[in-house]
Amino acid sequence: MSEQLRVGMVGYAFMGAAHSQAWRTVNRFFDLPLSARMRVVCGRSPDGVAAAAGKLGWETHTTDWREVIDRDDVDLVDICTPGDTHAEIALAALAAGKHVMCEKPLANSVAEAREMAAAATAAQARGVRSMCGFNYRRVPAVALMQRLVAAGRIGAIRHVRAVYLQDWIVDPEFPLVWRLRKEVAGSGALGDIGAHIIDMTQFVTGQSIKSVTAMTETFVPTRPLPSASAGLSAASSSGASAARGDVTVDDAALFLARLDGGAIATYEATRFATGRKNGIRVELNGSLGSLVFDFERMNELSFYDATLPTADQGFSRILVTEPDHPYMAAWWPPGHLIGYEHSFTHEMRDLIEAIGVGKDPAPSFTDALQIQLVLDAVSRSAESTRWTDVESV
Amino acid sequence: MSEQLRVGMVGYAFMGAAHSQAWRTVNRFFDLPLSARMRVVCGRSPDGVAAAAGKLGWETHTTDWREVIDRDDVDLVDICTPGDTHAEIALAALAAGKHVMCEKPLANSVAEAREMAAAATAAQARGVRSMCGFNYRRVPAVALMQRLVAAGRIGAIRHVRAVYLQDWIVDPEFPLVWRLRKEVAGSGALGDIGAHIIDMTQFVTGQSIKSVTAMTETFVPTRPLPSASAGLSAASSSGASAARGDVTVDDAALFLARLDGGAIATYEATRFATGRKNGIRVELNGSLGSLVFDFERMNELSFYDATLPTADQGFSRILVTEPDHPYMAAWWPPGHLIGYEHSFTHEMRDLIEAIGVGKDPAPSFTDALQIQLVLDAVSRSAESTRWTDVESV
Amino acid sequence: MSEQLRVGMVGYAFMGAAHSQAWRTVNRFFDLPLSARMRVVCGRSPDGVAAAAGKLGWETHTTDWREVIDRDDVDLVDICTPGDTHAEIALAALAAGKHVMCEKPLANSVAEAREMAAAATAAQARGVRSMCGFNYRRVPAVALMQRLVAAGRIGAIRHVRAVYLQDWIVDPEFPLVWRLRKEVAGSGALGDIGAHIIDMTQFVTGQSIKSVTAMTETFVPTRPLPSASAGLSAASSSGASAARGDVTVDDAALFLARLDGGAIATYEATRFATGRKNGIRVELNGSLGSLVFDFERMNELSFYDATLPTADQGFSRILVTEPDHPYMAAWWPPGHLIGYEHSFTHEMRDLIEAIGVGKDPAPSFTDALQIQLVLDAVSRSAESTRWTDVESV
Amino acid sequence: MSEQLRVGMVGYAFMGAAHSQAWRTVNRFFDLPLSARMRVVCGRSPDGVAAAAGKLGWETHTTDWREVIDRDDVDLVDICTPGDTHAEIALAALAAGKHVMCEKPLANSVAEAREMAAAATAAQARGVRSMCGFNYRRVPAVALMQRLVAAGRIGAIRHVRAVYLQDWIVDPEFPLVWRLRKEVAGSGALGDIGAHIIDMTQFVTGQSIKSVTAMTETFVPTRPLPSASAGLSAASSSGASAARGDVTVDDAALFLARLDGGAIATYEATRFATGRKNGIRVELNGSLGSLVFDFERMNELSFYDATLPTADQGFSRILVTEPDHPYMAAWWPPGHLIGYEHSFTHEMRDLIEAIGVGKDPAPSFTDALQIQLVLDAVSRSAESTRWTDVESV
Repeated sequence: MSEQLRVGMVGYAFMGAAHSQAWRTVNRFFDLPLSARMRVVCGRSPDGVAAAAGKLGWETHTTDWREVIDRDDVDLVDICTPGDTHAEIALAALAAGKHVMCEKPLANSVAEAREMAAAATAAQARGVRSMCGFNYRRVPAVALMQRLVAAGRIGAIRHVRAVYLQDWIVDPEFPLVWRLRKEVAGSGALGDIGAHIIDMTQFVTGQSIKSVTAMTETFVPTRPLPSASAGLSAASSSGASAARGDVTVDDAALFLARLDGGAIATYEATRFATGRKNGIRVELNGSLGSLVFDFERMNELSFYDATLPTADQGFSRILVTEPDHPYMAAWWPPGHLIGYEHSFTHEMRDLIEAIGVGKDPAPSFTDALQIQLVLDAVSRSAESTRWTDVESV
Repeated sequence: MSEQLRVGMVGYAFMGAAHSQAWRTVNRFFDLPLSARMRVVCGRSPDGVAAAAGKLGWETHTTDWREVIDRDDVDLVDICTPGDTHAEIALAALAAGKHVMCEKPLANSVAEAREMAAAATAAQARGVRSMCGFNYRRVPAVALMQRLVAAGRIGAIRHVRAVYLQDWIVDPEFPLVWRLRKEVAGSGALGDIGAHIIDMTQFVTGQSIKSVTAMTETFVPTRPLPSASAGLSAASSSGASAARGDVTVDDAALFLARLDGGAIATYEATRFATGRKNGIRVELNGSLGSLVFDFERMNELSFYDATLPTADQGFSRILVTEPDHPYMAAWWPPGHLIGYEHSFTHEMRDLIEAIGVGKDPAPSFTDALQIQLVLDAVSRSAESTRWTDVESV
Repeated sequence: MSEQLRVGMVGYAFMGAAHSQAWRTVNRFFDLPLSARMRVVCGRSPDGVAAAAGKLGWETHTTDWREVIDRDDVDLVDICTPGDTHAEIALAALAAGKHVMCEKPLANSVAEAREMAAAATAAQARGVRSMCGFNYRRVPAVALMQRLVAAGRIGAIRHVRAVYLQDWIVDPEFPLVWRLRKEVAGSGALGDIGAHIIDMTQFVTGQSIKSVTAMTETFVPTRPLPSASAGLSAASSSGASAARGDVTVDDAALFLARLDGGAIATYEATRFATGRKNGIRVELNGSLGSLVFDFERMNELSFYDATLPTADQGFSRILVTEPDHPYMAAWWPPGHLIGYEHSFTHEMRDLIEAIGVGKDPAPSFTDALQIQLVLDAVSRSAESTRWTDVESV
Repeated sequence: MSEQLRVGMVGYAFMGAAHSQAWRTVNRFFDLPLSARMRVVCGRSPDGVAAAAGKLGWETHTTDWREVIDRDDVDLVDICTPGDTHAEIALAALAAGKHVMCEKPLANSVAEAREMAAAATAAQARGVRSMCGFNYRRVPAVALMQRLVAAGRIGAIRHVRAVYLQDWIVDPEFPLVWRLRKEVAGSGALGDIGAHIIDMTQFVTGQSIKSVTAMTETFVPTRPLPSASAGLSAASSSGASAARGDVTVDDAALFLARLDGGAIATYEATRFATGRKNGIRVELNGSLGSLVFDFERMNELSFYDATLPTADQGFSRILVTEPDHPYMAAWWPPGHLIGYEHSFTHEMRDLIEAIGVGKDPAPSFTDALQIQLVLDAVSRSAESTRWTDVESV
């Protein structure tokens, strides 16, 4: 029996449920040097966290995140709270010598992110590992996209086209949940979902965004106050009260970008794309071919190989379920699809593997800081109405 | 200026309009040894045919098809009437030394088809050409499918799957138009649209159907009598009268088949596939790959090449608009689609080319007879409830 | 904490892994009257079953399936072995008063299936529940299909079109694994995958197949003997030895059918559809609309509503991830896909719910017997080359 | 017989061929107050224009465009030349009292476009009609998109997403054809194809672009000089000589925009999107629904109706071939597709109709000027790296 990796998780809402499923599942499908153990879950509400522990399958629970860090029987702290608490928890955990898995975005401000990245770098010297949770990298089709680009299969990348489209707040009576308040969420569509397509496109292209021109928009400026704080899934119009408050984040963010490898790009993140529930699309056009990913069909990757004879060329719909596709040898026979939650299982697989063999997993806190700097450049460009450079890490 | 091919067309409804557009267009896009001239159009109604001549662009018109055949200034007779008149007109035209283009199905009975095939074969010796109008062969994606099979790109064909799905008579109050009466149309979905997928699959595979097991169904046994005879496009519920008559043809025909090259097949032709207006799908699975055609996306062909590395394999959506795709060099730049009517323009292109160079075009009347024999075997199997062999030509 | 349902599972290969993931997960996402406990796993190889217990997360293990049935701490026996052992294990388990979950096909012969169905019916009186594992019913899009049909949304069903396409034995050097031997597997594509589309189409239409005309084919009659017995996923060309044996099952089975509610149907099950890994497609055409399901895009259902204004009509691609879609309220926010394994989690959800509230789950052993009788009629028709009636249950 | 509209066309390359097909066809399918007559075609090369007249079916030909305008037997001048000659020809034609059809872009500079718009407005008073050729408006699916928006079916428009993707110059050895030289073409992808998506999006939304932030890129700065001047279709690598010249236009143009009705938008026009031959995609998200058009499937429109019950919602693929869809009653039965060239036939239909009934067709030269002003704002923004307002017409 392999050595254990004892996990303490802070936060148990949407991301907490996804991470729990991943921790529970990862060793059942992957052969790994460490075996995850779901030791303790933490949340602010005593009743809520007790129920979550039972439902999600954690051995114990607490309302004090510092207790999670202080425990000797916790090796890794998994941070699934809103962004305004990431820095404090992560810094304390790293200081205590715990490995840290932190959901994205790394922090709500560049200053916090810089401090976290520095702390993570310092901790590396002591063998303490840290990782930021950009789970979409671990969708097999996205990992395959990266592999094909890295192998030169589409040549020099000319164009990147990325959108992340949701529609959960199209209704103007949808309440003012925490994700719509800047002091908790940092930003709106930009940081919540825009961060994902920034990470995905930089990951698959191997290029970094160096400058942007941007706009943001808040279509619905005020919304009913929620009767009580609610997570994404719990929030609904029925929970709305009569009083209204200001939406202090962006409903949508659009930007153009130049990447350091010569590609040019368009990005769009919005919560107002009616009919698109979680519509991530990433397209790459290169000198030798093109690649298209669409999360609505997350088990597929479209690949255009311009080196084939002209009459044969076409966008090939690769069903990314073969044993020689990333992560897929662990799962079912070809043609048997996987789902959203598997991206987290793959994330934990890579994290456990890295900890077990003594390497630093990716994306690091420094990688996540760079994404924060892109978000910051987007915000500054939207305000200044000018092209704006992304600051150096 | 090239020599003329002077055409006389009998019938001016749906097929007549499609053929007219083809005759008008073919020399504008293709370089051919002969130049088509739209000399005379023939129909039963004096007013109708006069209007059609003006609208469709024929120089003269008549109500007597024998006059078309008798005219010295007609080189080719194009038969666009319902199937019950094909034999008489075609036999007379061949006897008069006119080339013949005959719409499918060749005839309403095997006996007639045999007589026509024999006459066409005899006429060949005198340099008189004949062709049956299975236009879907000339859709570029279908022609490309044939080319890829013939080049061995999908290896030995194991499976054929062909459906022709329409829905224009789902409404039980749709009137009893001529296509629903056996004495005029010969059969229902089977001969009207089933014949097309029989031709297409035999054409693309290079194999012939040798035995079948079949069923036919008439879901709506009686329908309102139409107030007046009407073509497909003119017919509508509003034209229905109170009296009802028996539907004497099949609404749907389904059959399994064995082909002489070892493939096994499923076929379905129906006018009751709600939502499918002209839904032709042909799928081939071979030992080295697969091909899929769907007429709703007629400019595309899906090709699975199982000789590529496993991780690259997928159904490739070939946009069949490249100059090195069949027929397409004549048209627009890549990516600029063509439509249904172009299949007829290509048909006339191949016919004119064959006449000009002195060759026999395909499909010949004998090819069309063979399709008639398949239809006959399907009908006999549906009655006998047994596997039934297709008779020899 | 809810009462436990203690499970003993026999067999731990492909189906065993899928069931294990379902048992592990079901109570984490669904609120149920009983809590599943993975008590014991059974397999023939001592080392294999020990490893499987560790990997799949079972508390104990054994090589004797009778021990599983004898244990007091087992409430339910989950049978995941090949079909030749289903009857003996299930009959013993039912006799011992254990609930039984049996993978499909229920048995390898009609006689066995009849005996099992009778035993299951008798056991019902004692509160012993049994269910056959046709998991594809529990794909949310398939369940939604059933719901829309039952609500009359597509009217009277005219056409059923069902294919189950795989390609894992296209290579003639793929070895002679157990699924290709009649004495173990009962039949080939017919029983293995054809059974699934029989169940799915009967489930969604609410109609039963009453007669068939069929054909079967074995394209590759001999194959290399495998060096050792291997499951589906483990089997590969590399495991082949020089000696060859006879393939004694069908590679493909095709049949036409009449259903008792007036629909007519085409069915095809094959392991020779190159490029289709697990390609299940079910299409229904009704008098008021149509429905299409394709497992390659298992989170989608296409619905054509012919009661909408004509100009608005089209096949609507419903992303079946909304809380008001079957099973989906338990999972992630809209737009976050689920995978193949979730169909088993839903299966166990329904089974646990039924046991907990004291109802009989579906499909029952009698339902599974009826499917066996359809398979039998297909086999008899393929031999007799005649339309053949399905025997009564 | 209806009165004639006698046409003189200047230019006979790609656009000339498309217009010729439209003039030849329009009266064969549409009932119109005037009948088009293809009187004269004009081009610079005596041999070329003579051949074109024969091939394309024009009665006479000339090398002097002024002669076309001077002829008494020409009622309308159709300008199909590159953009640098539009202004001179159009102004002369309008002055001579000829109706004018001018291909897009209206001119190569704002100054020219302003002069043309003023002249066209002045000519209206004399009953002289003018129109600019943005043909994609006349694709039935695009016209249906406009109709659905205008009927309020998607509510208030939040997002516009438009791309026009081509790949014909990805090869760096593709020669320096006229479309790559600023002095002839005005701009590159921006004016050639970007202009189309500006027109399409403004047309379907009913909103005008008021400000932009933009970037342009020339990926391949020098190219081989062509051995001789060549049109789009004739140009090929084989025509390249050793000497190279500077590409003086953009290969790609990207911009964000604000529209005057509150929508925000992303635009991309490129000739470097490998695998996309003529890939126009326009997406709209509104408060009540969404619409998607993709030219690769030009006979389809996707419509998401968020006013349907949640469980029924989905993107509906409307096959735009019904008689109650724009322009389609004139063509074939439902499900029989049309192609690229039909957009021109519809353009001429609307133009002839307007002339016949004495109304001004759209888009007018003033509409085209406004598009030119958007192009100009894009160019200025790309230079200044600032958000830039579109000038007033």
